[in-house]
Amino acid sequence: MAEVRLAANQYGKAENRVVRVTRDTDRHEVADLNVTSQLRGDFEAAHTDGDNSHVVATDTQKNTIFAFAKDGISSPESFLMRLADHFTSEFDWVSGGRWVADQYGWTRINDHDHAFYRGSPEVRTAVLVRDAGTDTMLSGFYGLTVMKTTQSGFVGFPRDRYTTLQETEDRILATDISTKWRYNITDLDFNKVYESVKQVIMTSFSEGYSKALQQDLYKMAAAVIDAHAEIDEIRFSCPNKHHFLSDLSFCGLDNPGEVFYAADRPYGLIEATIQRKGSATADQAWVGVAGFC
Amino acid sequence: MAEVRLAANQYGKAENRVVRVTRDTDRHEVADLNVTSQLRGDFEAAHTDGDNSHVVATDTQKNTIFAFAKDGISSPESFLMRLADHFTSEFDWVSGGRWVADQYGWTRINDHDHAFYRGSPEVRTAVLVRDAGTDTMLSGFYGLTVMKTTQSGFVGFPRDRYTTLQETEDRILATDISTKWRYNITDLDFNKVYESVKQVIMTSFSEGYSKALQQDLYKMAAAVIDAHAEIDEIRFSCPNKHHFLSDLSFCGLDNPGEVFYAADRPYGLIEATIQRKGSATADQAWVGVAGFC
Amino acid sequence: MAEVRLAANQYGKAENRVVRVTRDTDRHEVADLNVTSQLRGDFEAAHTDGDNSHVVATDTQKNTIFAFAKDGISSPESFLMRLADHFTSEFDWVSGGRWVADQYGWTRINDHDHAFYRGSPEVRTAVLVRDAGTDTMLSGFYGLTVMKTTQSGFVGFPRDRYTTLQETEDRILATDISTKWRYNITDLDFNKVYESVKQVIMTSFSEGYSKALQQDLYKMAAAVIDAHAEIDEIRFSCPNKHHFLSDLSFCGLDNPGEVFYAADRPYGLIEATIQRKGSATADQAWVGVAGFC
Amino acid sequence: MAEVRLAANQYGKAENRVVRVTRDTDRHEVADLNVTSQLRGDFEAAHTDGDNSHVVATDTQKNTIFAFAKDGISSPESFLMRLADHFTSEFDWVSGGRWVADQYGWTRINDHDHAFYRGSPEVRTAVLVRDAGTDTMLSGFYGLTVMKTTQSGFVGFPRDRYTTLQETEDRILATDISTKWRYNITDLDFNKVYESVKQVIMTSFSEGYSKALQQDLYKMAAAVIDAHAEIDEIRFSCPNKHHFLSDLSFCGLDNPGEVFYAADRPYGLIEATIQRKGSATADQAWVGVAGFC
Repeated sequence: MAEVRLAANQYGKAENRVVRVTRDTDRHEVADLNVTSQLRGDFEAAHTDGDNSHVVATDTQKNTIFAFAKDGISSPESFLMRLADHFTSEFDWVSGGRWVADQYGWTRINDHDHAFYRGSPEVRTAVLVRDAGTDTMLSGFYGLTVMKTTQSGFVGFPRDRYTTLQETEDRILATDISTKWRYNITDLDFNKVYESVKQVIMTSFSEGYSKALQQDLYKMAAAVIDAHAEIDEIRFSCPNKHHFLSDLSFCGLDNPGEVFYAADRPYGLIEATIQRKGSATADQAWVGVAGFC
Repeated sequence: MAEVRLAANQYGKAENRVVRVTRDTDRHEVADLNVTSQLRGDFEAAHTDGDNSHVVATDTQKNTIFAFAKDGISSPESFLMRLADHFTSEFDWVSGGRWVADQYGWTRINDHDHAFYRGSPEVRTAVLVRDAGTDTMLSGFYGLTVMKTTQSGFVGFPRDRYTTLQETEDRILATDISTKWRYNITDLDFNKVYESVKQVIMTSFSEGYSKALQQDLYKMAAAVIDAHAEIDEIRFSCPNKHHFLSDLSFCGLDNPGEVFYAADRPYGLIEATIQRKGSATADQAWVGVAGFC
Repeated sequence: MAEVRLAANQYGKAENRVVRVTRDTDRHEVADLNVTSQLRGDFEAAHTDGDNSHVVATDTQKNTIFAFAKDGISSPESFLMRLADHFTSEFDWVSGGRWVADQYGWTRINDHDHAFYRGSPEVRTAVLVRDAGTDTMLSGFYGLTVMKTTQSGFVGFPRDRYTTLQETEDRILATDISTKWRYNITDLDFNKVYESVKQVIMTSFSEGYSKALQQDLYKMAAAVIDAHAEIDEIRFSCPNKHHFLSDLSFCGLDNPGEVFYAADRPYGLIEATIQRKGSATADQAWVGVAGFC
Repeated sequence: MAEVRLAANQYGKAENRVVRVTRDTDRHEVADLNVTSQLRGDFEAAHTDGDNSHVVATDTQKNTIFAFAKDGISSPESFLMRLADHFTSEFDWVSGGRWVADQYGWTRINDHDHAFYRGSPEVRTAVLVRDAGTDTMLSGFYGLTVMKTTQSGFVGFPRDRYTTLQETEDRILATDISTKWRYNITDLDFNKVYESVKQVIMTSFSEGYSKALQQDLYKMAAAVIDAHAEIDEIRFSCPNKHHFLSDLSFCGLDNPGEVFYAADRPYGLIEATIQRKGSATADQAWVGVAGFC
């Protein structure tokens, strides 16, 4: 057999769907999360010999998540920190891990006490990576589809023999915003920061003229970092969801920016990381995070 | 070869994604639809001999959809009626068809003139079936997830040797509402009716004590038919999205309706049709409609 | 309240994922099914009053499925018949129902005794509808993607002011075959029939020149009905998965049927029912079956 | 505004669905790929000022992919290398990028010359990352679902107050294999290596007794690195797809490993990197690759 070595690895229980109802009064509250727990540490023997004496069962990780939910879930971020602290203190050989919580938002029906509909378009997400003694806490969201019906163009790009795209100074700009940001402290009201960042991003997207989706990402990022001293870095992964102007000349119709064909594939894919000047970089911490952001 | 005959058939272009921007003023409006057109009529020769002289190309149906969008889309229902009238009058051998339009809802970002986010949790849908000289117009929606955290129980069901379920008088009730209703007239403000029916359904769901999801469907249906004389029938197809109370006794914790595991599969599936007494039935019209409703 | 009446309804447990391993010898066999059970009958009181005395719990239906699996699953069709017989005989008020089983195919890895990979491209499906004293047994499959790279054209179609499509005598024809057929008897080796029908369909698809997808459906249907006296009817719902010839003239390249762009949406959607001449029709039995076929 | 800096970024056109038919003889060949191209380099001005003079349009990247397909696609890996060489040599400011190609496998129907079905269960994938003057070429696949119906157990794991899982020496082990491996040279017959690695993985999975899924991953990895001197590293991300033994005692039935409930969520998630001893590490190269592997 070849001489091999075990490098980066992690394991656990993924997508534990936990719903926590707070019913201390007649006006119930709901926390609805999808929680993943994966441990890192000394798991060499399980890989090389099938020796499970260090393998905290994924079923045990699941049980822990549901048991901890009993104490309440004030924010996905704080819930992940509690899980990380528990596993790394309870088991000597667990030095870190990766914990993820997606949260789905519920809205009261007619301000009802205990009836809700799932009304949030975006899924809020939090990721905590603990590795080599360092915590990286990320918050973010995905699934927020936005569109500007004007004030967007694309001109001045280089042309070669494979270039057929025409310049335009008025197009639809549409994307699904997927973003994560990194904190430099964790003693925070995460729910309040989340709502603020989301508002800053949406407001920034809606304002001004867009010369390129890249410019929008940078502008949104700068606005977030400007407004939030506790955030050192933010990443975006955003498709350019093409809306092609329908050519109706075949039946004698003009189409001044009114009828569009919304295409599925291919799509532009614009991804960028923007950091606070002077802040420490932490590229390594993102390894193992799903996708670019 | 066996002696065979062609029975029910339809063909066309599915899922034409058309976005119509109304920009007569600076305050833009957006209609975002996914339109399917399928024709019925005399298409025997195409099947038996590959004779396409009657086959209005699916590409032509697509072009027609985009060209008609130029004149504006006031409601999905009226758009489908225009398509049906066009195809059945333009081509002698086209006697009917099935047209479907799903509509996605957009909400203004901070009341902005031309920046939006896709904020509607549900997808609005309309189906027009024209067959044998009869029109059946259906409106509805799908993808509206609702939940009651109390005021729901399930008791009194029969028990046999395969029954292990315990009775409960307090459980979470959650479902994705998928519904379609049938009109007895079509000279309507479809947008206004749609908003009203959706509100009636959500309000009805939230109120009272639920003894069974069947009872909720019936109650919601009755409320809709009661409030809308123009509706003769409504159908629901609703999963019972089980939320199982987490058994935390393994670690000594009580769990009085607080921590739940949200399961994916299997799920209950409750489907019902409710009609106005004395109205004509129209079961046949639903044939070829996707799913139960 | 409006005067309303309960019309067609059914309820049960959907998507019970049951895996049955036969291990009487070292050479294991696997049956992997997704089973849905829905009952029809007298369930009026549950809807109108929340009286569950007739409501065989969906949990009980689930338990029954898993318990019956203990006796082996020789075919999805026979398994559904056993479920139907049980529920309609065990409970007076259950007069019928709709039962569906999807089956996933597993292939041995290197002819291994107990190691498998999921190798079947298509999902086999069976539907049994028992209503008003009549059984309708359907078998079929979905998810089989097929393609012909030549011997397909589309010419001779009518042209109007919305027609821009050019005629072609050589194009790619690709579709996902989704089909269901109806038996006139049920005392059959369903597994043997299934394999034969699938082969007849694939062979028929591959042979000859296609003038329209409609012609392919009819030809495949006729071949099935010709080869199987026990089948009276077959339905197809098949997308025309467009492969557009890439126009490479922008960079001076010719493209004689070599480079294609495979589009997602919109797509053609061709649906047809073909019946044995002289056989009884059974359109009503398809009501409540998901989709056209 | 905050002082910010642009860090890692990439952009391009994702999911270009290209089908290349080779029809030099009557026996056609098909290459069916989903290609993504993203460029890295000096794109600062586009982000900060909306200056697109460096922004090779994503539409141009798409055109290039289709134009290059005209020359044939011998393997996804070689196609990606050609794209990378083109973009980095054609444009001074493009220093690297990330290119991905998924390939879908087609099988001849009855050994037909031009009729095929999509018969490969797995999707083959290739990723080329060019950054800071270094190429990282990865090959792999995803979507291969495998199962062992015996010769798998899980014992000897630690127990705490949250542990309820029972030990078992006979269970079903099922997973979806998702893997990528890294080459130390690129002058290879990539198609031949691919087929071999896939076979080594499947054979390794099927053989012997599994004490933990971790052990399987390690064993499969060692077998691959042992058999292929050109591979220095391999990663796996594999769900433990739980098959829970159905408890049928409620109706008096024994269940010795015969009837299982196949669960969806939560699932175990086991991820590991295994490297050739003495080889250079290249963790950084994986940044920006979707997911763990």
